[in-house]
Amino acid sequence: MLETIDPGKKISKEDYKEWFPRLKADLRALQQKVREAGVPVLILVEGVAYAGKADTIRQMADALDPRGFTVHSIDLPTVADEERPWLWRFWVRSPSRGKIALFERYWYIRVLEERVEGRIPADECTYAFQEINQTEEMLADDGAIIIKLWLQVSREEQKKRLKRVAEDPFREFDPRGGSLKAYKKYDEYQTAVEEMLVRTSTHAAPWIIVESDHPRFRRVKVLQSVCETIADALNKRQANEACPEKEKIERVSVPALEEMPKVLDRVDLSLSLTEEEYDSEKTALQAHLRELQFHMVKQRLPMLMVFEGWDAAGKGGSIRRLTANLEPRFYDVYSITKPTPEELARHYLWRFWRRLPRSGHIAIFDRSHYGRVMVERVEGFCSEEAWRRAYHEINEFEMMLYRHGVIIAKFWLEISSEEQLQRFEARSNDETKQHKITDEDWRNRAKWDAYRGAVDEMIQRTSTTFAPWTIVEGNCKRYARVKVMKTVASTMKAALGR
Amino acid sequence: MLETIDPGKKISKEDYKEWFPRLKADLRALQQKVREAGVPVLILVEGVAYAGKADTIRQMADALDPRGFTVHSIDLPTVADEERPWLWRFWVRSPSRGKIALFERYWYIRVLEERVEGRIPADECTYAFQEINQTEEMLADDGAIIIKLWLQVSREEQKKRLKRVAEDPFREFDPRGGSLKAYKKYDEYQTAVEEMLVRTSTHAAPWIIVESDHPRFRRVKVLQSVCETIADALNKRQANEACPEKEKIERVSVPALEEMPKVLDRVDLSLSLTEEEYDSEKTALQAHLRELQFHMVKQRLPMLMVFEGWDAAGKGGSIRRLTANLEPRFYDVYSITKPTPEELARHYLWRFWRRLPRSGHIAIFDRSHYGRVMVERVEGFCSEEAWRRAYHEINEFEMMLYRHGVIIAKFWLEISSEEQLQRFEARSNDETKQHKITDEDWRNRAKWDAYRGAVDEMIQRTSTTFAPWTIVEGNCKRYARVKVMKTVASTMKAALGR
Repeated sequence: MLETIDPGKKISKEDYKEWFPRLKADLRALQQKVREAGVPVLILVEGVAYAGKADTIRQMADALDPRGFTVHSIDLPTVADEERPWLWRFWVRSPSRGKIALFERYWYIRVLEERVEGRIPADECTYAFQEINQTEEMLADDGAIIIKLWLQVSREEQKKRLKRVAEDPFREFDPRGGSLKAYKKYDEYQTAVEEMLVRTSTHAAPWIIVESDHPRFRRVKVLQSVCETIADALNKRQANEACPEKEKIERVSVPALEEMPKVLDRVDLSLSLTEEEYDSEKTALQAHLRELQFHMVKQRLPMLMVFEGWDAAGKGGSIRRLTANLEPRFYDVYSITKPTPEELARHYLWRFWRRLPRSGHIAIFDRSHYGRVMVERVEGFCSEEAWRRAYHEINEFEMMLYRHGVIIAKFWLEISSEEQLQRFEARSNDETKQHKITDEDWRNRAKWDAYRGAVDEMIQRTSTTFAPWTIVEGNCKRYARVKVMKTVASTMKAALGR
Repeated sequence: MLETIDPGKKISKEDYKEWFPRLKADLRALQQKVREAGVPVLILVEGVAYAGKADTIRQMADALDPRGFTVHSIDLPTVADEERPWLWRFWVRSPSRGKIALFERYWYIRVLEERVEGRIPADECTYAFQEINQTEEMLADDGAIIIKLWLQVSREEQKKRLKRVAEDPFREFDPRGGSLKAYKKYDEYQTAVEEMLVRTSTHAAPWIIVESDHPRFRRVKVLQSVCETIADALNKRQANEACPEKEKIERVSVPALEEMPKVLDRVDLSLSLTEEEYDSEKTALQAHLRELQFHMVKQRLPMLMVFEGWDAAGKGGSIRRLTANLEPRFYDVYSITKPTPEELARHYLWRFWRRLPRSGHIAIFDRSHYGRVMVERVEGFCSEEAWRRAYHEINEFEMMLYRHGVIIAKFWLEISSEEQLQRFEARSNDETKQHKITDEDWRNRAKWDAYRGAVDEMIQRTSTTFAPWTIVEGNCKRYARVKVMKTVASTMKAALGR
């Protein structure tokens, strides 16, 4: 999940100067609405050391009317905390209705710092995630708005900041500051953060990831997300109360940051292989894959591969090359098209549960359960609530597979819009390939931007340590096919422990 | 929870003959509505061996139109099942929209038989509960109606049935039948069942406990509960769709079984102690309690006691006698009255979180968080949805305390309506006690039956192995006080492991 984030996003000084004061005014106006509506708001700011948590709190506090908010800074538990159930210190700090509570760190300290530093037993985490979700659900059911911000900084940026602090003569102001310890455990923390994001990004209280290498970007995204979440929640509340006379609350007065670079923008589509490179790599890889498959069968490991990508991105071709030399008794390719009436009549995950691989078998999904958050979302085949809920559902589904021992590899085949157009035209002009291009493909193409936004969110929200997405640069088919084969091989190798 | 259930409830042959055919007709009519509404219905029938699961399924199947339902009998996993994630065999059996699926046993087999028989590792249960709740939530979010029936038979009745089966020459029809093994593990199963009921009685899919010693009662209660749940769910759906022209669906055509005997009816209020008995017991117990408290402090064990009961049932007097000889630095009595504005402005559990005992301390709640499901329910201070949700919330809350190590004892002080009247009148006539009786007490008294129903449901739903309710026969104050002291002493003793 975090590897898909670009913590280095920035905005210009000019935009910042124009937007930030406006967002502060927005937040202050919303605070008034929060008071009127009488809902409690919890804003939880989490992040590794020196991610900018304190500054984030400061900026929000600066925008707010001091009579309506409180700030809580949570550190490791005191003796008094430890003498109570661990959630006690959070419960007693609940804001009252109409008030905003800003928390620098919250109960996630339990599943991050206390976990990584070994202060709690290993199995405690399973309980903790459950209790966190239960408690957030209780608070949300009671009307609370819970906003969870994760400030993500890159390894390099964190190191720079820690060094700067070490040289600060006043560093003693921060009792735990200046230590490079946290930096040394960067990877351990990232793994713990990943699991936390997956297990606790519920529909009631999803995480918002804030790219935080650049303070201007961080500040703007934080205020914008907070304002939008509060406005959306209040509007929903009004709609439920069915007060049509009430005016809809404006979300924010600045342009959407969604226009910022996406995961897909960072893909280098110029990557390519020559015919010769391809031929030699392909033959070796196919032989190697057959050998690896043999060991997968022997060790009875089940594997699931998911292929998603633009129309004409080359999913079918990649799958064919991948499986060319595999033993067919132990793999199945499922082409997922429009659901049958039987499938439509059930939960959307049903058709994928039915197609799960057995021990020692490989199931390859040519299109998959991700349709829920792509085509069904963009075409309006399901409600917004349904596809929003689906990210968490899909993560939980894949977590269940992972717990059973299923090895998961997911591929997004990326091509440029121009490349797609060329391929469409080539197909139309080639009689043997005309069946592969339909009116629907052209209609989908017209919605390129909407799909691109959905794909971006999908990859960010569902790329997990146990089921990561691999983005495949697909303008050169040869390059794409080799990358798919290489990734599958290395995934299998890791699973086999060799 | 289960100890509060009277599995021996019965109804007369005449009532059965009149009601049962009507309920069957109701169910069949509802099946038509289910088809029209296009919602899938899962009816899960669980219970110990020979609780009557098969007959329950048979009776429902008999009532239904065969084109609209399927029956699934789940046994221990096959090889094909074990090669997939454990939830696979349930997912693939999902009913389609508009259909009813009847399951003889369901995923609860995992946390009952597979658990008790040691077929899964111990920590697997924690995950299983989580995955069960997630999956039920997914299905419910997708529109499914999930009805979970637990058929409870008494130890004696189960033994009788097992014996009868052992003597049956055709017992081989049931491949696993005739074994007394299950009976021998009765207590182990009951503990596992208790935990299952607590952890998976969610708002989305609560358990219905069916008293099953008598087949007539079981059959009627099953059909009645199933019909009511389906009708309520369909009505709610209609309300959400805002189709005012649609007629409300009738729940059932027979009288409510709620008129049946309650937990409180089984309380023997004639129990009493003479003045002499009381004096000698009291003095010894108070000395003993002080000694036990000393060890609780030494071992740093926190304890929570909850006192609930009718007005004038003697809560205050019992608490005074209990604490008379305790060391006051290590206990606190909290009298819970109307919430303050500060408390009203937060989640109802907040005021109780704030009053949790520290290590080695005792917190005594004179009235408690159970107000949510009694006074707030009966007086309409919170919505029906809120108090229905509260049973699960309270169980989860107490589970968190238990996990931290808090020892919990809960007392319901029961008196008869006549006894209350006498006490009220005595208070009114005694100048020194007039302040103890208010108009509100009289108003509450007028709602005796409504409160009695609420208390009954409260005790049934929240008496757990880790936080059991003790019902105290309170017509004789001396008897009540001694029973409270004795119960506290034995709870402390058990906690101290002595």
